[in-house]
Amino acid sequence: MIYMDNAATTKPSLTAFERAREYVTEYFFNPSGMYREGFALQGELKKARSALLAPVANETAFELIFTSCGTEADNQAIFSFARRGNAVTTEGEHSAVLASFAELKNRGYAEPRFAPLNADGSVNVEKLLALVDEKTSFVSVMHVNNEIGAINDINAIAKLVKQKNPRVIFHSDGVQAYGKIPFKLCKEVDLYSVSAHKIGGLKGVGALIKRKSLVLPAYLIGGGQETGRRSGTENVFGIKQFEYAAEEKFATLQADYERLKAYRETLWEGLDKDVYTRLSSETGTPYILSVAASGLRGEILLHMADDKGLIVGTGSACSSNSKNRYSKVVLACGHDEKTADGVLRISFSPQTTAEEVAQAIGILNEIGRDLSRRMK
Amino acid sequence: MIYMDNAATTKPSLTAFERAREYVTEYFFNPSGMYREGFALQGELKKARSALLAPVANETAFELIFTSCGTEADNQAIFSFARRGNAVTTEGEHSAVLASFAELKNRGYAEPRFAPLNADGSVNVEKLLALVDEKTSFVSVMHVNNEIGAINDINAIAKLVKQKNPRVIFHSDGVQAYGKIPFKLCKEVDLYSVSAHKIGGLKGVGALIKRKSLVLPAYLIGGGQETGRRSGTENVFGIKQFEYAAEEKFATLQADYERLKAYRETLWEGLDKDVYTRLSSETGTPYILSVAASGLRGEILLHMADDKGLIVGTGSACSSNSKNRYSKVVLACGHDEKTADGVLRISFSPQTTAEEVAQAIGILNEIGRDLSRRMK
Repeated sequence: MIYMDNAATTKPSLTAFERAREYVTEYFFNPSGMYREGFALQGELKKARSALLAPVANETAFELIFTSCGTEADNQAIFSFARRGNAVTTEGEHSAVLASFAELKNRGYAEPRFAPLNADGSVNVEKLLALVDEKTSFVSVMHVNNEIGAINDINAIAKLVKQKNPRVIFHSDGVQAYGKIPFKLCKEVDLYSVSAHKIGGLKGVGALIKRKSLVLPAYLIGGGQETGRRSGTENVFGIKQFEYAAEEKFATLQADYERLKAYRETLWEGLDKDVYTRLSSETGTPYILSVAASGLRGEILLHMADDKGLIVGTGSACSSNSKNRYSKVVLACGHDEKTADGVLRISFSPQTTAEEVAQAIGILNEIGRDLSRRMK
Repeated sequence: MIYMDNAATTKPSLTAFERAREYVTEYFFNPSGMYREGFALQGELKKARSALLAPVANETAFELIFTSCGTEADNQAIFSFARRGNAVTTEGEHSAVLASFAELKNRGYAEPRFAPLNADGSVNVEKLLALVDEKTSFVSVMHVNNEIGAINDINAIAKLVKQKNPRVIFHSDGVQAYGKIPFKLCKEVDLYSVSAHKIGGLKGVGALIKRKSLVLPAYLIGGGQETGRRSGTENVFGIKQFEYAAEEKFATLQADYERLKAYRETLWEGLDKDVYTRLSSETGTPYILSVAASGLRGEILLHMADDKGLIVGTGSACSSNSKNRYSKVVLACGHDEKTADGVLRISFSPQTTAEEVAQAIGILNEIGRDLSRRMK
């Protein structure tokens, strides 16, 4: 089986899993326990916090709060700070941001505003800035788009936003960027969401990186864990496994980046251009190649690929529960419904091999041609 | 090492861990994936939901929503329904409920009201009912107190509350009851919070059990998982491990209950009555024995016990981050500050042995007498 839906979730690192296992078998204590065994786990959490933060941010200016997932990190950021005037985001966001922005209006917190996308899936920065005014309280721009793979230069965008209104709190959903593309957060980014299970971590673990000087209200209230910003007994095992998985990813990040970029291009070059159109631009993340088989249904192709041992995605797995047939993001890039209906998202991990890429080309061409013939 | 702080957290079941391991190594997919491997995990989640719900509630009337912890389940219940008039709870609640109720006032959602406790730590039902009026929107009464171990008859209380005001939404924090004491929820209980790591599950997994006909708003908003009531990629591995751990607990629940009740009494009988006073009543959960070494500091005793290889708690581990020196719950039972300062919470699991109980008696008497002498 060839797994190429790594943007939905990745296979957890078994090395990291085995390394973290002692936090289940031996050091299973509650870190709030006042005995030395509990206190020692606070030290382990501190180490994890630092190891996860240091590769992407200056530790003197930023800190990291553990959450249960990227969605929780996004929700905490949005519902904490988008509380007056208007809040600006993009049409390309993951549903954790997009649906939360829609909710801002229902709750009367802030007027949500959505900036359009460029054809490559990145946000139209000029139009985003035009939506920011003196009443804007919050701006959220995703780092790497989860469907198309477009990269937004969030550092540059944050600076431009703050030039226009320095009081804006700037957030970025970094779930598809963290551990995959090289970057360092600049001080104009106030909040940054990450998730463990997209880079070999376990599901149920995420984090919200924040500027230290920003006062973050609690989203889960109770025992006062995470210095009061996120109550609930700390998931020590999940957090340590995340630390170890991230360590592996950051160690080979640049080499993985280059290799997967080559794989992405090889895959595209091998695909039958009579069937497939490319949606992802060359400047996007190497981890995602989105294509459209215009006139065909992506969902049917996905099942045909699955039957042949290739797992790929269509649109965002995370929004598959919703009733929307067409990817809003693909439509927001300016594609028609016929194209949006035929989208396949092929997403890699550092474990992806050249052999798998070659096999995927064969399968995708075979099923694409087969379905095309049957549709005539 | 003798571990007797099981009310803070329990050692995860390794059998359940190994059984669930295949959801890390093999079936690691995103359950929202539209291919058959993703869809199959939806079936696994459904099985877990049913296995966790059936022992405590009628499956035709109740359903179960997975959350990341008991705190999240409590927060979702409270902030969803305590939205008008007043909201009533008890002075004995865990901080996940107590601190959330305090927040209701800050947010202008509802006026929080706190019912006093009886000397045994259970809620004074008469006084609770006196706080419920036609403007009450929400009532929350914990099932088993986490510090003293008192059991509230939540079914009877829910019925009395609804007799007084049928529009009240009734919630119970069942974190210390679920998988430990025998009960079935009656239809007057609308919401019930549970946690995995108190019964051999992993940290980072909890659930909110709810009456099916109750419309529950989402607390985490995004991809629409948990039929829209809790977005975020499902923690399949953690959920399956919870299912398997709970299966073990429910299989021997009654026998464990009887055995630990005997252990609790043996432990109490063995303790030096010149040093220790009993706080937990005989009618409380067999899993918790709280005692006070009046005039001594519980925290010091805890460290002395730790040095001798016995881990016990003092007050609630979950609130150890807060600045409050004295347990609010112990004070609410009518004890003075001197007593509240000397509290030790000894809490069992089904793995606790008679030999450990005997050793714990020896250690607790030795350190209690030792510290008493030194204080003179």
